[in-house]
Amino acid sequence: VSIAAESTGLPLAEARRRRMRELMELLYPWCRSLTGPGVRDTLDAIATEVPLEVVATPSGTDVFDWVVPNEWTPRGARLTDASGNVLADLADHTLHLVSYSVPFEGRLTRDELAPHVHTLPEHPTWIPYRTSYYNADWGFCLPHERWEAAGDGPFDVVVDTRLEPGHLVHGELVIPGRSEEEVLVSAHVCHPSLVNDNLTGIVVAVELARALAAAPRRYTYRFVFAPGTIGSLVWLSHHRDGWHRVRHGLVLTGLGGGGPLVYKRTRRGDRPVDAAAWHVVRRRGGTVRDYSPWGYDERQYNALGFDLSVGRLTRTPHGEYPEYHTSADNLGFVTDDELAEAFDALVEVLDVLEGDAVYANMSPFGEPQLGKRGLYPSVGGKAAGDAVMAMLWSMALSDGDTGLLAIAERADLPFAAVRHAADQLAAAGLLRELDTTLGAGSDG
Amino acid sequence: VSIAAESTGLPLAEARRRRMRELMELLYPWCRSLTGPGVRDTLDAIATEVPLEVVATPSGTDVFDWVVPNEWTPRGARLTDASGNVLADLADHTLHLVSYSVPFEGRLTRDELAPHVHTLPEHPTWIPYRTSYYNADWGFCLPHERWEAAGDGPFDVVVDTRLEPGHLVHGELVIPGRSEEEVLVSAHVCHPSLVNDNLTGIVVAVELARALAAAPRRYTYRFVFAPGTIGSLVWLSHHRDGWHRVRHGLVLTGLGGGGPLVYKRTRRGDRPVDAAAWHVVRRRGGTVRDYSPWGYDERQYNALGFDLSVGRLTRTPHGEYPEYHTSADNLGFVTDDELAEAFDALVEVLDVLEGDAVYANMSPFGEPQLGKRGLYPSVGGKAAGDAVMAMLWSMALSDGDTGLLAIAERADLPFAAVRHAADQLAAAGLLRELDTTLGAGSDG
Amino acid sequence: VSIAAESTGLPLAEARRRRMRELMELLYPWCRSLTGPGVRDTLDAIATEVPLEVVATPSGTDVFDWVVPNEWTPRGARLTDASGNVLADLADHTLHLVSYSVPFEGRLTRDELAPHVHTLPEHPTWIPYRTSYYNADWGFCLPHERWEAAGDGPFDVVVDTRLEPGHLVHGELVIPGRSEEEVLVSAHVCHPSLVNDNLTGIVVAVELARALAAAPRRYTYRFVFAPGTIGSLVWLSHHRDGWHRVRHGLVLTGLGGGGPLVYKRTRRGDRPVDAAAWHVVRRRGGTVRDYSPWGYDERQYNALGFDLSVGRLTRTPHGEYPEYHTSADNLGFVTDDELAEAFDALVEVLDVLEGDAVYANMSPFGEPQLGKRGLYPSVGGKAAGDAVMAMLWSMALSDGDTGLLAIAERADLPFAAVRHAADQLAAAGLLRELDTTLGAGSDG
Repeated sequence: VSIAAESTGLPLAEARRRRMRELMELLYPWCRSLTGPGVRDTLDAIATEVPLEVVATPSGTDVFDWVVPNEWTPRGARLTDASGNVLADLADHTLHLVSYSVPFEGRLTRDELAPHVHTLPEHPTWIPYRTSYYNADWGFCLPHERWEAAGDGPFDVVVDTRLEPGHLVHGELVIPGRSEEEVLVSAHVCHPSLVNDNLTGIVVAVELARALAAAPRRYTYRFVFAPGTIGSLVWLSHHRDGWHRVRHGLVLTGLGGGGPLVYKRTRRGDRPVDAAAWHVVRRRGGTVRDYSPWGYDERQYNALGFDLSVGRLTRTPHGEYPEYHTSADNLGFVTDDELAEAFDALVEVLDVLEGDAVYANMSPFGEPQLGKRGLYPSVGGKAAGDAVMAMLWSMALSDGDTGLLAIAERADLPFAAVRHAADQLAAAGLLRELDTTLGAGSDG
Repeated sequence: VSIAAESTGLPLAEARRRRMRELMELLYPWCRSLTGPGVRDTLDAIATEVPLEVVATPSGTDVFDWVVPNEWTPRGARLTDASGNVLADLADHTLHLVSYSVPFEGRLTRDELAPHVHTLPEHPTWIPYRTSYYNADWGFCLPHERWEAAGDGPFDVVVDTRLEPGHLVHGELVIPGRSEEEVLVSAHVCHPSLVNDNLTGIVVAVELARALAAAPRRYTYRFVFAPGTIGSLVWLSHHRDGWHRVRHGLVLTGLGGGGPLVYKRTRRGDRPVDAAAWHVVRRRGGTVRDYSPWGYDERQYNALGFDLSVGRLTRTPHGEYPEYHTSADNLGFVTDDELAEAFDALVEVLDVLEGDAVYANMSPFGEPQLGKRGLYPSVGGKAAGDAVMAMLWSMALSDGDTGLLAIAERADLPFAAVRHAADQLAAAGLLRELDTTLGAGSDG
Repeated sequence: VSIAAESTGLPLAEARRRRMRELMELLYPWCRSLTGPGVRDTLDAIATEVPLEVVATPSGTDVFDWVVPNEWTPRGARLTDASGNVLADLADHTLHLVSYSVPFEGRLTRDELAPHVHTLPEHPTWIPYRTSYYNADWGFCLPHERWEAAGDGPFDVVVDTRLEPGHLVHGELVIPGRSEEEVLVSAHVCHPSLVNDNLTGIVVAVELARALAAAPRRYTYRFVFAPGTIGSLVWLSHHRDGWHRVRHGLVLTGLGGGGPLVYKRTRRGDRPVDAAAWHVVRRRGGTVRDYSPWGYDERQYNALGFDLSVGRLTRTPHGEYPEYHTSADNLGFVTDDELAEAFDALVEVLDVLEGDAVYANMSPFGEPQLGKRGLYPSVGGKAAGDAVMAMLWSMALSDGDTGLLAIAERADLPFAAVRHAADQLAAAGLLRELDTTLGAGSDG
């Protein structure tokens, strides 16, 4: 029985849509960053949905080529013009303050202030999202039209933040399967009030964890909720003896915001997860792209030293829609239908990874007489339907080397149809499953 | 000297067109099926053209996963309405009776009769073709408009058939060549009054056998005329020690009926016959398709246990033209030009299989001076013609590994031109044929 | 530092354009052929520009399948009609006399003369170019309209040529590099007053030699200026122990005359020079073609016995423009811009061959923190530029097996950007160059 069959019924699906929306609404206003209260609160909220383990790593810890930074606590930030009008206030929108801004207080001329102000001239009413993680600086992001109208100053600046030794936190959730081999699902949790990037990834991952926990599978599933780059590296550094168990993986983000599904291949590009996602995403009208070392945490998982088979699922990728990293990436930018389809596609991908297998044809001398086994229509002379074709293809190609996904691709049939045909033929003694585990065998 | 050169002269071609038409006209009215008098008479008719051996296999014989069925003898069948009007009579058209109908006699209401009546609402004047080989049932096929006008009944049904132990017959013809390696040409003989599917395959195969018998070649040619599926499996079961000698093969059917030539690849898709047919069919404006386990006896030959390199040549394939398996597939549906071109294309494919060879360049240090051997135009400065280009390509690529067909493909020249160039260069001592037998070597 | 950086500055480029034009103007009127004073004078002229060594090989010398022909000295040739009008005079245009014409003097009727007259009916004012190297004959080439108007004769013919034992000359120039492995640059020198084919190849090769001599490189560069076919074979015959040192090569000709750059692949098609030229030429809007054994001296270098990796750079190839091998291929048919771009492209190709290398990622566990090394923009949240992308791609793919050109292709970045990124990363200790020499390693 497939994950899809168990998780996509209508009442289940309705409840899932509602929960995803509510969790996005809860998380939206919080000021997440690499560290600090926003990301702590976010992990706590996830932990009320699924049994998340939260791991804290001290500032200053060496993490491969990186060092865990000081913890950043934004307590308030305000920019006021000469007349006392508030141009930007952290309390109004988390994007107003450049992430990881250092504390500052003072009165500046317009020229002095300008290098600390970020706007989007081409979208004069939107607030951009900017960070200064590894360069000690402060800044404000505000609508371009507001900055244009702000007069000559002087301006009063208050940036009330703390940057002190503390911890970087990430969350982890393991759902054991029959095998120790793992499927990694990773979502970043470091973006403040931005919905498509990254709340969509978080809420779909939470629902996927919930569905899998209800019925454990062949693979062990490991969910990682971590701040981008440094967070995934922290997770990897905690699992130096474990990362080789990850057979397949997916980074989730940007699952709303318009456009068809887009799968980004692993660096190697020929991994089982690439084949599975190609099969599923293309049949849903989506597209597949080659790997690039720009993007989200797939950059770290695919780095040469780790070499994990981790792809990425989004809709229109980062940087290709104008709302990206602006205040226009809000709760109205993502629809429930988009998240529901993304969930369904993910489940189909996992069903391929779980269900792909190699069979041997036990009746290889010509086609078997399906009719005497009740597997063939009784009146001849008409075209065969998908069910018969799936059986014929499975018999024709099950040479002990070709898996069901490869058969489905060559037959241009959905994986589920071929999977079902193999079950019928195996029950009739015409196919026999071999030990070869396709998902695991690709590194042999 | 090629098969093409010997068999495509005008008087020969005219006689061939006439014979093919006459044989189709003779065979058209007969009630062929998997077994019975129709297929016996058909094989006898072929045997008057070429020295066919007819093989009879008793009902009940185990044939791999199948069993030879009882022999079916249709003696008469008639469906009459309440007024005594004849709605369908086997004597009028062989398609009226569902093939392998069991005996039945009785008076039925319209509701009782309906499950036994097959029509084509979308083509109300055509009779469909239906079979019930492996399900004991009876039925009539008739024009939809006639069934619609037939009133409420009652209807009188007479199905006077016998289904008794007997034999399944198939025909075989072997034309020995210099080598024991074989080329298989297979046509099914089980369809009643349908011309494109399958009389075209029969008559083209007969003419090919005639042409090859006149001048035996390198390969041994084996022609099989057998009922579909069970018939080809019977032939294979009689040759358990011999099928491995089949190096190349072609199933022939549907060679008229409109559309360009269509070659269907072997299951493996990279066999010499695939390359030869790709070369020939594409140059004639035809197309090539990948293997699928739906179709004719290529399904059996390509099954994993036999793994024979058997492709298929048709025009528009089965199921893709409305006349398929209906009374509209009649003598007017196929033209003599179509059959003549199919014959020519087949002969070209066989010439490639016969003539492909690997040569070594005996003068590899630069181009040889063709001019001093009378092989080059004497006035320079103009473009080279095909004959010179075929020689230059043959010298450039004859590295002891690359065959003439591969050279022709890379040079985008007809195989015959490269074959001729190799003969000239070998005569001049510039090329030497190697022992490597391309047609046979692909399984090494 | 790249060849491009050193050779494409504005003053250098201006001087180069001027020199190329002047050399073409000097060489244009001379009557070159396989042998004789025209080719001797041409090599002498080249030798005044760069330190060319001229090699003379006696007539009658065996050269692989060929023999060095007698030396041809055209002293005069004139065709006069019955009224004393001169129809063709070698002194007016070198194309008037068929190259390698044997001596002849006599009065002929129009019918007797006709087989010796070559015209272009489709371009009635142009003189064609014809040769009769290996067939003892004589002939005149003239504008079709002049021949049509020439009356019935008789005609007076004077062909004052000598064909006597002498020498075939070719020129050679070696610029030693750090390695004994060679890059071959070859241009033919046997065409009379034709500019695109072949003066463009000569003058661009001369300028390339000048630029390389100013700053020797990793490879040893070998320039060959030789008559077509027999001349390149003579050069090869003098280097029986040396031709295996040629790692990469390019034949140059037809670098003007309109159209984008066209690179013709080596026979094998997958050599480093093919990859380098594909990278450069495509980015300049040019095209790449597969090998064919028709063309220039790449036919000899790529012959099976030599198997040298020699491609060819032209614009619109021979035979595809109407001016080809006619008097319309004159000094106005080629622009300085065309030659300048061809030079730049060549230098880029050589920079790829010189600079391609394999690196190992020394910080493979995740991306390195480029920011702390000053290699990353300090404000985050925006798209990465080419410089950052080139670094990320170089780190992502430097697995000890993938070279910089392959990285540039996958990244869709100019080779120079990736080469620069590798230098930066190597300086920061993040990449280490391996011993693997890509350009040399392809034959291992």
